[in-house]
Amino acid sequence: MEKLKVGVLGATGAVGQKFIRLLDNHPWFTLVAVGASERSAGKSYAEATHWIETSEMPDFVKEMTVKNCTPEAMADVDFVFSGMDAAVAGEIEKDFASNGIPVVTNARVYRRDNHVPLLVPEVNPDHIGQIPFQRFDSNGRGFIITNPNCVCVPLVLSLKPLHDAFGVDKVLVTSMQAVSGAGYPGVPSLDIMGNVVPNIGGEEEKIMWEPLKLLGSVGDNGIVSNASIAIQASAYRVPVVEGHLLSVTVGFKTKNVSAADAISVIQNWVSPIAELNLPSAPKQPLKYFEDPAHPQPRLHVWNERGMQVSVGKMRASGVLDLAFTALGHNTVRGAAGGAVLNAELLVNKGYIKARA
Amino acid sequence: MEKLKVGVLGATGAVGQKFIRLLDNHPWFTLVAVGASERSAGKSYAEATHWIETSEMPDFVKEMTVKNCTPEAMADVDFVFSGMDAAVAGEIEKDFASNGIPVVTNARVYRRDNHVPLLVPEVNPDHIGQIPFQRFDSNGRGFIITNPNCVCVPLVLSLKPLHDAFGVDKVLVTSMQAVSGAGYPGVPSLDIMGNVVPNIGGEEEKIMWEPLKLLGSVGDNGIVSNASIAIQASAYRVPVVEGHLLSVTVGFKTKNVSAADAISVIQNWVSPIAELNLPSAPKQPLKYFEDPAHPQPRLHVWNERGMQVSVGKMRASGVLDLAFTALGHNTVRGAAGGAVLNAELLVNKGYIKARA
Amino acid sequence: MEKLKVGVLGATGAVGQKFIRLLDNHPWFTLVAVGASERSAGKSYAEATHWIETSEMPDFVKEMTVKNCTPEAMADVDFVFSGMDAAVAGEIEKDFASNGIPVVTNARVYRRDNHVPLLVPEVNPDHIGQIPFQRFDSNGRGFIITNPNCVCVPLVLSLKPLHDAFGVDKVLVTSMQAVSGAGYPGVPSLDIMGNVVPNIGGEEEKIMWEPLKLLGSVGDNGIVSNASIAIQASAYRVPVVEGHLLSVTVGFKTKNVSAADAISVIQNWVSPIAELNLPSAPKQPLKYFEDPAHPQPRLHVWNERGMQVSVGKMRASGVLDLAFTALGHNTVRGAAGGAVLNAELLVNKGYIKARA
Amino acid sequence: MEKLKVGVLGATGAVGQKFIRLLDNHPWFTLVAVGASERSAGKSYAEATHWIETSEMPDFVKEMTVKNCTPEAMADVDFVFSGMDAAVAGEIEKDFASNGIPVVTNARVYRRDNHVPLLVPEVNPDHIGQIPFQRFDSNGRGFIITNPNCVCVPLVLSLKPLHDAFGVDKVLVTSMQAVSGAGYPGVPSLDIMGNVVPNIGGEEEKIMWEPLKLLGSVGDNGIVSNASIAIQASAYRVPVVEGHLLSVTVGFKTKNVSAADAISVIQNWVSPIAELNLPSAPKQPLKYFEDPAHPQPRLHVWNERGMQVSVGKMRASGVLDLAFTALGHNTVRGAAGGAVLNAELLVNKGYIKARA
Repeated sequence: MEKLKVGVLGATGAVGQKFIRLLDNHPWFTLVAVGASERSAGKSYAEATHWIETSEMPDFVKEMTVKNCTPEAMADVDFVFSGMDAAVAGEIEKDFASNGIPVVTNARVYRRDNHVPLLVPEVNPDHIGQIPFQRFDSNGRGFIITNPNCVCVPLVLSLKPLHDAFGVDKVLVTSMQAVSGAGYPGVPSLDIMGNVVPNIGGEEEKIMWEPLKLLGSVGDNGIVSNASIAIQASAYRVPVVEGHLLSVTVGFKTKNVSAADAISVIQNWVSPIAELNLPSAPKQPLKYFEDPAHPQPRLHVWNERGMQVSVGKMRASGVLDLAFTALGHNTVRGAAGGAVLNAELLVNKGYIKARA
Repeated sequence: MEKLKVGVLGATGAVGQKFIRLLDNHPWFTLVAVGASERSAGKSYAEATHWIETSEMPDFVKEMTVKNCTPEAMADVDFVFSGMDAAVAGEIEKDFASNGIPVVTNARVYRRDNHVPLLVPEVNPDHIGQIPFQRFDSNGRGFIITNPNCVCVPLVLSLKPLHDAFGVDKVLVTSMQAVSGAGYPGVPSLDIMGNVVPNIGGEEEKIMWEPLKLLGSVGDNGIVSNASIAIQASAYRVPVVEGHLLSVTVGFKTKNVSAADAISVIQNWVSPIAELNLPSAPKQPLKYFEDPAHPQPRLHVWNERGMQVSVGKMRASGVLDLAFTALGHNTVRGAAGGAVLNAELLVNKGYIKARA
Repeated sequence: MEKLKVGVLGATGAVGQKFIRLLDNHPWFTLVAVGASERSAGKSYAEATHWIETSEMPDFVKEMTVKNCTPEAMADVDFVFSGMDAAVAGEIEKDFASNGIPVVTNARVYRRDNHVPLLVPEVNPDHIGQIPFQRFDSNGRGFIITNPNCVCVPLVLSLKPLHDAFGVDKVLVTSMQAVSGAGYPGVPSLDIMGNVVPNIGGEEEKIMWEPLKLLGSVGDNGIVSNASIAIQASAYRVPVVEGHLLSVTVGFKTKNVSAADAISVIQNWVSPIAELNLPSAPKQPLKYFEDPAHPQPRLHVWNERGMQVSVGKMRASGVLDLAFTALGHNTVRGAAGGAVLNAELLVNKGYIKARA
Repeated sequence: MEKLKVGVLGATGAVGQKFIRLLDNHPWFTLVAVGASERSAGKSYAEATHWIETSEMPDFVKEMTVKNCTPEAMADVDFVFSGMDAAVAGEIEKDFASNGIPVVTNARVYRRDNHVPLLVPEVNPDHIGQIPFQRFDSNGRGFIITNPNCVCVPLVLSLKPLHDAFGVDKVLVTSMQAVSGAGYPGVPSLDIMGNVVPNIGGEEEKIMWEPLKLLGSVGDNGIVSNASIAIQASAYRVPVVEGHLLSVTVGFKTKNVSAADAISVIQNWVSPIAELNLPSAPKQPLKYFEDPAHPQPRLHVWNERGMQVSVGKMRASGVLDLAFTALGHNTVRGAAGGAVLNAELLVNKGYIKARA
């Protein structure tokens, strides 16, 4: 198979850099265009970018010329990833989709759009059925697809088997979130070194709403009926570089669900996309740890190249039904890596293909 | 008033050092004896102690000779503070009490004893009424009094006004705890730098039980009827030096309690010991912050010399009734400072006095 | 004595906030005006300021109206402290001085000016003799006085006794600098958490030059003859909140200086301003620690309210003569606190006084 | 080629775990025995080990039974790696060597032994010529070989090209060392979080001596004539998990060496073992970074799987000749990874081979 040609919008930012790194040696995709703001356009990528990844900038991208984020400037791509800030993503992403270029975005702008899938492949792969209903491109080629907020990924992946088995009714989650979630320069060191900040602007609203769409079902009209779950979120920033750790308490519609029941369900769960063998899909998307001190960001966040969500310390709650810990890599699984996996599913399902 | 003569048991350890620091220039108490294990006994305090406080070791203690922790070796004290490990505290504390020496302890051994008060002066000062029922000293002079686990102090202090006003029914708490709570050497740096550990051995049981006694009422038999509240605790260790931050969700017996109601109750609450003017009592034991990013350990843990508990971000919970953040200094308010305040209350009430 | 009326330029920034905190309850000075950029002018100080100090904003400043940084807007002050960025400080400070208002500044703009003292009171108090030569105010009332870079203070204070005794010839210093030295927002957390950054823009030049002026002597023309010392500096940023720690190696003009000689000289050194009893002067400006693991930022940076410089681990160097460690509080002793002490010396010497 | 059978002594400790991880999928070596103290012997490795590596324990080792560290208990190995503490390594390592089993050790015990090579393959590969002179095994099969202290590796690797070109005369180094260098539990978090500790017991002596042997030459008698260089070391512990960063100043025998000269020498240097293509050898053992803020532990410590030493900010020193920054991974390049590379060189040179 010839590799698909991909562009990255917002390529010089923190999420964009993660896309560049994940596309290095990707078996299906080849990076042909990097787009950024007018300030960067025309420069080489190496010149325009303050590289913050912990592996060095790949050679193949260093001399690429940064382009403007327009369909004209990036006309040779088969599709684009978007790591743009929400402040500018709306118009640009729509513009690409309207010009027949699929947009796989990490930005939040269209997550609540009636016909835009909010997708985690292991959770709601059928939601790609929303795409034909999209308004963006009359000829059916261009569309937008989103991945959720970085906390929602480990939350929803860990809840999914439990929801299928027991019907999740109520969720209380306290998130302890890494600084990389705020991008670069992001959180000032004076605010977070040796400290915890009990607020992250706008985060809790996303955690309380996005899981409802992710666990909802697509109707004949291409619109998702949200799941009926009461969620309360408390978002804290902690001095961790990468990895969001969640303290979760959950109530079920089913009575008398034991911790052992829940662990068994998690351990026996099979991802609905397991047999597709997508290149970025973890072999085990959800792992349960027996050691009550696990999972931990430092020890486990890079398991399966950052794409595994891990769970531990399942136990009875005296208030709702069960309590547990969940961990996910916020900038891989919860952002760029999730988007790459989304694109792989769309290729597999025929939504993204080479342009004629 | 002549100062009371006090000894510190476990004086060379982390909690013991905090006692030494708090007793430096204390208006009512003068340190006359420091006790530690046999290994340290006979040495000077400066020689026996790996000092970890952030102010220098006070001169007055440097040349004191460390004694064995026996009533005979410390016969000249009016009472003792105990910062001993639970592993050894049981027998030694009983021995002091049986010999007529009041013991104000931070150790957990007797917290569940039927006649030993578990005391936070602003929360349950009447629990000192348990003392006359104690078995430890037949002549009524010796007794043991305990302060609660370091998470329980900010939890119970922040719940107390709400409980009095609305009747707390359910509590879910995720604690983000500082490393100083584990003493010294305590948490290895490799385990916690840039990391969060989702388990602290034995901690959750204490957080789920001690508040029930603290918010309970003393009967005519000197036994506490525990409050009827369902509590679930999730204890996490975070890379913070001092200050336990809590994410709390609460349900009330009263219906329709709003965040504004709760804030008003907290802001108008008056500590039952306010008029006693105890030297270590904070002027404002409980403070509400309007900024949703407050309180934070780094900014607020030393407010009122570490004795204030602070609360913020009160809001509706979609699952229980309200959610909020609470912060307390774990080694001051939650340990040695709380014990010193306990002793001050006992002096004020006549339970601790100079020996004839 | 009636308190002198003081204004703070750049009052909303990191250094400005430190001035506010240090002026709270100052025995000689009373804050009457806070100045900041046009963006803040007209707002209340509480509204204009993102407060980052670890004690709460003092009540007395909350409702003060922020003024423009002009002599007209702050006409009632006897003198000003300046915590402004170097980018804007030059013109504004000159403007105040030219209007007869003494400026005690932490900014670097005039440090190399031929007639502006670069002052550390315990090191070169006689340099205030440069003031009458200044060009800024023809009537002799207005002038500018500067304190050095935050690394230079512990470096020069620890070298001063050695220089007087043995003649410092060569200095090699590697500084491990706290993030608070970069102001707010300053260093991004992603750059420094669990990391060390081997470069701080512009820092090494200051460390290599300023000590030469500080240890130089003022001539009859009011110009300083710099000391003849070869200095090499290597500036590193470390994940510490406050406290610059220095690894220093020194060569002397005197032969065969032993570590014991140097320790003795440091321990017997008497500050030239000791008998002035200035309110912010530490009783012991320079302390030697016997424990080779001391001084440390976390344990010792607040000694004598952050105004003490500490030294340890003096030993023979196999390459130059001696090696040692030095520590100073970068935002107190090395910035705002040093400026306050400078002002106190100037009051004592009659250079700053109440306006008629 | 059939893989060589290897054992690891001290397999449950921090260095031992790193050996296990590096031996997972090693192309030449297969782990057949894990040895530890009597306390662990008889248990499964998974049971005996508190695993602290950031990738999960490899499956192949989990069920291996931990053996005593004796040649009898590990009779089937072709050679052993030793990650034992110096306190116990001396007798045990000698015992293995005397029984004909080569010992490739990270422990310091024999580093100063007259006939034991202290080896960094890219620096002094010819020092393996000392082996035939060893006393340990009369039949010539058993021997001991050591790798240097973790600071010495980046120091000597960065000095080697400069020494060959210009003759290093004097070295001043301040090391900023990661906590993983102290093993586990190692440095207490209370000692190092947000702090720098200006002393590491015994470290400076090693840094001042080991480079002399590493840069020395082996005589006909199998004894190394040490290089004649004056070194002074100042060792600091910083809150970094992995990666020792060095601030180095160097003086040369050659006059007028410029920074450009030194950079050129480093960039054109070819490792003497480059053409051997040893599996663990980095393609580029020494890399120069142009960005003065590089190298940094967080960004560059894992370059070339942790086996590359990186250098930056080469510049003139006003005191000696040049100053620069160097970085090396302390537990990979500076410990277990260095030992594995040593073993690979010994296999290539015929010193380690399969037992008959």
